[in-house]
Amino acid sequence: MDPQKSGRRRFLTNGATLAGLVLAPSAVSLSSTSVSAAGAGAAADVDDVNSLDAVLYGRRSRFVTTVRSIEGMSHPDVMPPRPNPYRPSARTPVGDLMGIITPTSLHFTTQHFYGVPDINPAEHKLMVHGLVERPLVFTVDELKRLPFVSRIHFLECIGNRPSPNGRSAADTHGRMGCSEWTGVPLSVLLKEAGLKNEAKWIIAEGSEDGKHVKSVPLPKALDDVMVAYGQNGEPVRPDHGFPLRLIVPGFEGIYNVKWLRRIKVVDQPYVTFQEHSRFIGRDPKTQPNSFEFGPKSIITYPSGTHQLPNRGSYVITGVAWSGGGPIRKVDVSIDGGKTYKEAEISGPILSKAFTRFYLPWKWDGEEAVLQSRALDEKGQMQPTEAEYAKYWGLTRQQLYAATPSQLGHCNWILPWKVDRMGKVTNGLPPVGAVVDAHSA
Amino acid sequence: MDPQKSGRRRFLTNGATLAGLVLAPSAVSLSSTSVSAAGAGAAADVDDVNSLDAVLYGRRSRFVTTVRSIEGMSHPDVMPPRPNPYRPSARTPVGDLMGIITPTSLHFTTQHFYGVPDINPAEHKLMVHGLVERPLVFTVDELKRLPFVSRIHFLECIGNRPSPNGRSAADTHGRMGCSEWTGVPLSVLLKEAGLKNEAKWIIAEGSEDGKHVKSVPLPKALDDVMVAYGQNGEPVRPDHGFPLRLIVPGFEGIYNVKWLRRIKVVDQPYVTFQEHSRFIGRDPKTQPNSFEFGPKSIITYPSGTHQLPNRGSYVITGVAWSGGGPIRKVDVSIDGGKTYKEAEISGPILSKAFTRFYLPWKWDGEEAVLQSRALDEKGQMQPTEAEYAKYWGLTRQQLYAATPSQLGHCNWILPWKVDRMGKVTNGLPPVGAVVDAHSA
Repeated sequence: MDPQKSGRRRFLTNGATLAGLVLAPSAVSLSSTSVSAAGAGAAADVDDVNSLDAVLYGRRSRFVTTVRSIEGMSHPDVMPPRPNPYRPSARTPVGDLMGIITPTSLHFTTQHFYGVPDINPAEHKLMVHGLVERPLVFTVDELKRLPFVSRIHFLECIGNRPSPNGRSAADTHGRMGCSEWTGVPLSVLLKEAGLKNEAKWIIAEGSEDGKHVKSVPLPKALDDVMVAYGQNGEPVRPDHGFPLRLIVPGFEGIYNVKWLRRIKVVDQPYVTFQEHSRFIGRDPKTQPNSFEFGPKSIITYPSGTHQLPNRGSYVITGVAWSGGGPIRKVDVSIDGGKTYKEAEISGPILSKAFTRFYLPWKWDGEEAVLQSRALDEKGQMQPTEAEYAKYWGLTRQQLYAATPSQLGHCNWILPWKVDRMGKVTNGLPPVGAVVDAHSA
Repeated sequence: MDPQKSGRRRFLTNGATLAGLVLAPSAVSLSSTSVSAAGAGAAADVDDVNSLDAVLYGRRSRFVTTVRSIEGMSHPDVMPPRPNPYRPSARTPVGDLMGIITPTSLHFTTQHFYGVPDINPAEHKLMVHGLVERPLVFTVDELKRLPFVSRIHFLECIGNRPSPNGRSAADTHGRMGCSEWTGVPLSVLLKEAGLKNEAKWIIAEGSEDGKHVKSVPLPKALDDVMVAYGQNGEPVRPDHGFPLRLIVPGFEGIYNVKWLRRIKVVDQPYVTFQEHSRFIGRDPKTQPNSFEFGPKSIITYPSGTHQLPNRGSYVITGVAWSGGGPIRKVDVSIDGGKTYKEAEISGPILSKAFTRFYLPWKWDGEEAVLQSRALDEKGQMQPTEAEYAKYWGLTRQQLYAATPSQLGHCNWILPWKVDRMGKVTNGLPPVGAVVDAHSA
């Protein structure tokens, strides 16, 4: 083996180099690192990486300060008064993500204007009833005694709509995340209960004050839906549905009912308050789209609000996903879509999960417009904004004045513009009125 | 589609049922859940799931209290005096894990008796030098501008040895975890630096007070080794090597040098203090084993200290992994290895990563001895304790009196015994002296 004869490309010296990268051997020196003076016996300090608390349950470096961003109220006129407790929704800091797993602490949460219930899992139960032979009630411990699956899937709110008004990737795509979910296949519970012939849909209901309810067609419920008790190796957290959450892979976020307490088997979809008020379009053309997300992708670095420090070598990176299955490939453009190159995939390609991609890029200091497009296993290609608007017969103005329920899943391409100072901004031209796509 | 005609097994009513599972429709009722009375404006409370802090950076339910367990000093006679800061090592709570991702907060950490450095990433550098054409120094930001990989891999300390003295799975197998690691392939850096013909090994050095150093053969360094800056979607945490950690997939944990600051290319392995004192055996028979873990597995539920609540249906579950590549299959025995059944795999099978398996089990109230064995893609089968001892020509007593460096990777099977009261204990018969296998 002679590594020097390897044909693999050299990313740095074949192009512009990173600043100050190559040193003569005599010039090599390392900065010394400071070490906290506090020992294990010192007084508790939340920033002390050597504290007993940090040994028992680890914590981040004090130099890492990424947090979720808080969303405002969006439709106060159509929603009930704020209950108490009230808790705002929060967006994933998409521009800081790496890999395909979203840290649970940074995973978006949409609250529908109710507080997060503080549920004691020992007292929580899940009922399965309706058009079944044997109504069942499970405790959480009983569910953990059943066959289970553990899979990595994205979760995305239909409000995750590319918009010229978003400054950052968190603004436009912060209502999504990707976790390993562990739980019981819903099919196990439904078969145990015994489905009656008239069974066609299930209704899933949460425990929060608002009693969020969602209708799921039975074929999907028997396919890959699960009642999850685990997220990224721990119990599902309170703001993600502790102790039980319905996971409906590839479907809109709102189907993934949190604090799940009831599955009712029925013969038709219910049109509940939440479903009716914002999430079901009246146009039959949109109905088939109201379940499964099409292929989407977003460049996370560089993205809006980022600043390139200097000319030279970079990797453009982002995530791609599809409600239809695995991603087949991702293309990246640095010229606003005139030309594309196929991106490298940096990790596993899993069905209905984030797929991390990157493309090495040498920035020459000129303006650039970066964008990506995903192709999924079904052969569906992520559309441009123009293609999307044309399909629906809308002008740009109309596109951004429409609510999500009128439009399907809004999977058009969002470009990022890099100016000559290295500043990165939203690459979609401004429009006038934009409907806040916040929903589920 | 007629779900009632499905041939899939029914796990509950075909065997014993979970207690109190089937209810008449009229008896169905759900417990109401309590909701925290504190709103977003209330005073900060660490348990308040609706607090501003919890919106910005999520937290666990107050009902979830799993933590890492603290390890004692193991060889005070051969180690230097405890420095200040001192930080103990901590074990993963293996018996509470689900899926294949270990939450970073619960991932084991071995500290080699030095505190965790509190490194400012803006001041940290990585030097690549030695037998190279161009010595290089990188900042963390510069490394993030290079091609990267993001893969899910286990990390395991050689001290993770099945032993009759461990009460729980954390005691015997708590020195392991599995994360998504994101970083630059070391091959990219080495090719950029340009390897000289005499290059045969690399030496990796950390930044902590002890300056941990490890020698890695060049073929491995050019294969799948990476300089990681990300773990489970966030920057690597301080106790896992923030801001940079060498990841050497499938090799002993000690190779995965934390707080990485230096890669020196050399012509032979260095025998440094840490390598010499405990981790390199003198017997040539053990040398080939001192890199790559063989196939291993452990049942995580039920495992030591668990208590089965009653007779009935359970799932026996655990994880399997191998340093040699993907797991091909896992078998589970409920009679101490007399007979085995092939387990179901509940999630993705990834190379050099945990693979989650389960087997439905109906406990009839009699004594049972549960154990698993893993087969990897190389065709290597996890051995029994007797097979392992025979290979090394040792009695049981000698096996447990030997240090890891004399034994390879200690991948023999650990059974769990379930008594008639449902109490789960270590299934290995006691021996006298057991060497604490704590190491890396």
